[in-house]
Amino acid sequence: MPKTSDTKQRILDAARDLFATQGVQRTSLQDIADRLGITKPALYYHFPSRDDLVRSIIQPLLDDGEKFLLDVEARGDLPVRELIEGFFDFNYRHRAPVIMLLAEMPTLADLGLIDRVLGWRKRLTDLICGPEPTLEQAARAVLALGGLQDVCMQFPDAPVEDLRAAAVAGALDALGR
Amino acid sequence: MPKTSDTKQRILDAARDLFATQGVQRTSLQDIADRLGITKPALYYHFPSRDDLVRSIIQPLLDDGEKFLLDVEARGDLPVRELIEGFFDFNYRHRAPVIMLLAEMPTLADLGLIDRVLGWRKRLTDLICGPEPTLEQAARAVLALGGLQDVCMQFPDAPVEDLRAAAVAGALDALGR
Repeated sequence: MPKTSDTKQRILDAARDLFATQGVQRTSLQDIADRLGITKPALYYHFPSRDDLVRSIIQPLLDDGEKFLLDVEARGDLPVRELIEGFFDFNYRHRAPVIMLLAEMPTLADLGLIDRVLGWRKRLTDLICGPEPTLEQAARAVLALGGLQDVCMQFPDAPVEDLRAAAVAGALDALGR
Repeated sequence: MPKTSDTKQRILDAARDLFATQGVQRTSLQDIADRLGITKPALYYHFPSRDDLVRSIIQPLLDDGEKFLLDVEARGDLPVRELIEGFFDFNYRHRAPVIMLLAEMPTLADLGLIDRVLGWRKRLTDLICGPEPTLEQAARAVLALGGLQDVCMQFPDAPVEDLRAAAVAGALDALGR
């Protein structure tokens, strides 16, 4: 019989796999038990609910992010470039669970909002960089356009003219213009 | 008796208000009918479900975004600055329903993921700009950090070293460094 920690890890791996391929909402604990050939009570023993599984998949991201922040805060003199590089590495390492969760939002998905926004960004990138952008051009465009959308949501009460000037200048700089 | 189009607009206004203050999931069609002093069948006549209401609140955003894109595509020669300004204006105009939907994601909210990510951005901004950033510094930091997170999610299969170099360069430029 495998050790408890092995079973727990196998359950997490199977859940991650099923969540990614068929979605969190459409994956039952029974599906996960079936995939592993274990009983549902054996699964319950480790994870009493699907939410517990999702939480366990997200927890390393939360822990790692907190650790990264404490590290860079402890070294107050870190050059901004290294700080930005570290933040990229952290986000890139944990992109899978975030993509999984974003795909899960029933309202947004039903409304086609995410696909629509990604489509708009693509068409704007075509306008800015031409129809065959390099990876660098496409990445800078996503950074400029996605970042600009975040600015609109994160400062809803700032004076709009000041906010607009800052966001537009930052986006143009991000594009390398 | 008010005209049908008035009633429909009053229902939408009340729904927007209740969704924003108590959340979509915790607002029933009965709550909305009560707020307006109308019967539930009168409400059903215009919006058979809560999803129809959410859809109607989001629809202007979708229509306006599509219109903006078609406009700028029709004028192929628009300077990049005007394109970025127009994209800011569009996003800013429709920020309320997007903020409402983002606050609604049960999984993300339960996990504290959104608050955590916003907290990390704030702490990174403190490190980059000092504890009292100007609005311009704070907006550029959100653009750089939020945009960089989007890059990680939107190019999951690109060669990571190339992607990292582009994202880091774009983020530093966005910060004005």
